[in-house]
Amino acid sequence: MRIRTLDAPAHIGERVHLCGWMHSWRDMGQFGFLVLRDGAGTFQAVLDNADEIAKLRGLQFESVLDVEGLITAEPRAAVGAEMHDCRIEVLSPVLEPLPFEINKKEFKPGLDTFLDYAPIGLRNLQKRALFRISAELMTGYREYLNEQGFVEIQTPKIVGSATESGANVFVLDYFGRPAYLAQSPQFYKQIMVGVFERVFEIGPVFRAEKHNTARHTNEYVSMDLEMGFIHDHRAVMAMLTGVLRHMFTRVTEGCAKEVALLKLKVPAIGESIPSIRMPDAQQIILERYKEDCRGEPDLAPQHEAWLCEYAAKELGSEFLFVTHYPTAKRPFYALPDEQEPTLTKSFDLLFRGCEVVTGGQRIHRYEQLLENAAKWGIKAEQISGYLQAFKYGMPPHGGFGMGLERLLMQLTGQTNLREVTLFPRDQDRLAP
Amino acid sequence: MRIRTLDAPAHIGERVHLCGWMHSWRDMGQFGFLVLRDGAGTFQAVLDNADEIAKLRGLQFESVLDVEGLITAEPRAAVGAEMHDCRIEVLSPVLEPLPFEINKKEFKPGLDTFLDYAPIGLRNLQKRALFRISAELMTGYREYLNEQGFVEIQTPKIVGSATESGANVFVLDYFGRPAYLAQSPQFYKQIMVGVFERVFEIGPVFRAEKHNTARHTNEYVSMDLEMGFIHDHRAVMAMLTGVLRHMFTRVTEGCAKEVALLKLKVPAIGESIPSIRMPDAQQIILERYKEDCRGEPDLAPQHEAWLCEYAAKELGSEFLFVTHYPTAKRPFYALPDEQEPTLTKSFDLLFRGCEVVTGGQRIHRYEQLLENAAKWGIKAEQISGYLQAFKYGMPPHGGFGMGLERLLMQLTGQTNLREVTLFPRDQDRLAP
Repeated sequence: MRIRTLDAPAHIGERVHLCGWMHSWRDMGQFGFLVLRDGAGTFQAVLDNADEIAKLRGLQFESVLDVEGLITAEPRAAVGAEMHDCRIEVLSPVLEPLPFEINKKEFKPGLDTFLDYAPIGLRNLQKRALFRISAELMTGYREYLNEQGFVEIQTPKIVGSATESGANVFVLDYFGRPAYLAQSPQFYKQIMVGVFERVFEIGPVFRAEKHNTARHTNEYVSMDLEMGFIHDHRAVMAMLTGVLRHMFTRVTEGCAKEVALLKLKVPAIGESIPSIRMPDAQQIILERYKEDCRGEPDLAPQHEAWLCEYAAKELGSEFLFVTHYPTAKRPFYALPDEQEPTLTKSFDLLFRGCEVVTGGQRIHRYEQLLENAAKWGIKAEQISGYLQAFKYGMPPHGGFGMGLERLLMQLTGQTNLREVTLFPRDQDRLAP
Repeated sequence: MRIRTLDAPAHIGERVHLCGWMHSWRDMGQFGFLVLRDGAGTFQAVLDNADEIAKLRGLQFESVLDVEGLITAEPRAAVGAEMHDCRIEVLSPVLEPLPFEINKKEFKPGLDTFLDYAPIGLRNLQKRALFRISAELMTGYREYLNEQGFVEIQTPKIVGSATESGANVFVLDYFGRPAYLAQSPQFYKQIMVGVFERVFEIGPVFRAEKHNTARHTNEYVSMDLEMGFIHDHRAVMAMLTGVLRHMFTRVTEGCAKEVALLKLKVPAIGESIPSIRMPDAQQIILERYKEDCRGEPDLAPQHEAWLCEYAAKELGSEFLFVTHYPTAKRPFYALPDEQEPTLTKSFDLLFRGCEVVTGGQRIHRYEQLLENAAKWGIKAEQISGYLQAFKYGMPPHGGFGMGLERLLMQLTGQTNLREVTLFPRDQDRLAP
């Protein structure tokens, strides 16, 4: 019977099969130490039979093996057990040397080399730990929202018009006419508020942006939600706070091994996350960092970094909400603040120096939306399906979009989005 | 405090707010019956105050309301309670008549009319029930696979080469060079078997197929998995059987209201699903239905319907596995049967007359894969990233792809994929 390496210490005294990759092999002549890696972990097998040892000689690391043997107690091993009296079957031999040594703790190939060989590089224990955490973040996101009465949706990625921010859109040939790749599920999730009140989606979004920075790629995974019958944008911020808290709890509990391996500090999120208004944020930047960005419609990356430094020191938080971004920098559907109509009831969430979420309350009244679309130069015919929902009754609502990879990057202390994206896409990279 | 309609019967004797859409309104003059619909259900409010009644007169259905009132016991109401002494606030008035009457039980607009007005039509209770079941199927899928040690992945949808079945691929302009929309996560999920052994993904896939039938659309949601260290394709079939059983249990338990509303018969899945080999299936078709399709490489829709009729009658199963499809009709990575090399260790799963899953064991040995790629006319450079994984050690593995909408169509007895797809995409339809 095959068992996973993780379960082996529970089988002391039994003969079992372990299957996996030849993670490392130390050949001592008369005997040798094989570390086998499977999807769950690693386990050491001690070989002392010349015939079995001979099977491994000449093989490269990453060869796929089925090892049958006796699990024995070994107090000196980290997991308290190892395998003895082994019989080896080579399922898939590797005959060529690897492009890099993925079994080393200090596995730090250059980014381009890593990405060129990602199918192998991702097998490195530290690298794969990132993507197990990614999976846990998604699971936690859905789990919390399902409990909160949200319904999961899957909206189309091929769309007929490129309205949201026309410039940065990919165009494709759709049976002889142009179509576009969705830059976000924004319109669809808002429409679905009319159906389910509360909806969420995790899916790919596509941005044909030309800036090739460490915090941009051209395809990423967006965790979206939209919720109806809110009083204002703060209801969305409260939901975001709750879901992030749950996601991080999931990571702490479900990925304890990965958190330890990567030496992560997963932040605890309290009752609420501190929040400042954009004009106040700009005032703080002026006073503390002597840069006058008052009146600017958006925050530059440096400003975000400063504000996070401020929040960490003065507010004891690794997260900071910035609210009330100017209408000029928000889309036509963002709801202006009744008190101060040049600002919107919107927010960004900054985490360890970088924006990871954008959200806010949306316009829900048909006439106001029509008027704003016209102001933004958007023709009603271009968004007729979207407008339909509003013509026939939409409640006050809001939502957000959170970049999975951005969140993972900030959580795990990586410095480039490409390190936390499975097979990233940018201007220079379409493969593997 | 706002409560959801579903929870209202638990608040008898309390004044609460209910918020939602004006689902129906019967104006009896001195009094009237308002049915309010929210994301969770519907609830009746009885109005007898002339001022409040006046607020509803002239409003169209689907207007968005906040209704404050007293929940009282009412044995004659289906839920045992209704609301009295109501005060109404109109949050979003609807002033134009609806394109159709979505509050009717017999809501059967023509498909094109429905799709043109989907943002409103989806609010119909029967229609939205379909998509709540869809969400539950996804939740059940992930839940089971997470328990079985699978890791969720998100793979890129923009790809650099169009290898898998070149003809039916969408081409896009990627910064001045051609790129393609992924027809499946096949290569990526296989690569990731090398990392995690067991992986799954739910995401969009894109097929530029020109046939515009009731069972084809050009973008759909694929539920994929891939698993390593299997003995043969039957291990994948067993996993599929287990996950489907769990998904249907989730629907039965989590969507009891929707199942009742739609009068669905959710099939019980036993220990295993019956299975026949392709040549035997063709023999049965000849004997029972007098059509000789022996030697044909694939089953036509009529053949699938007949086989399901046969399985229902003779084997007592609404599901049927057909295995061992000929190599000619399977992709280059499908593993030929050692005993009978013109057939593959592959399967389709038929459900109520239609194929809903395709899967099988894959070639895992580098040399054999290279050889087969060449036979299929695929150049190694086109799939170099994919081949890398095999060069450096891949275990025996297999997996499947299951169409979410197809499964939902068969489960709910719909006859066109467009009825179970949120905002479907076909040759004629790119909006809303």
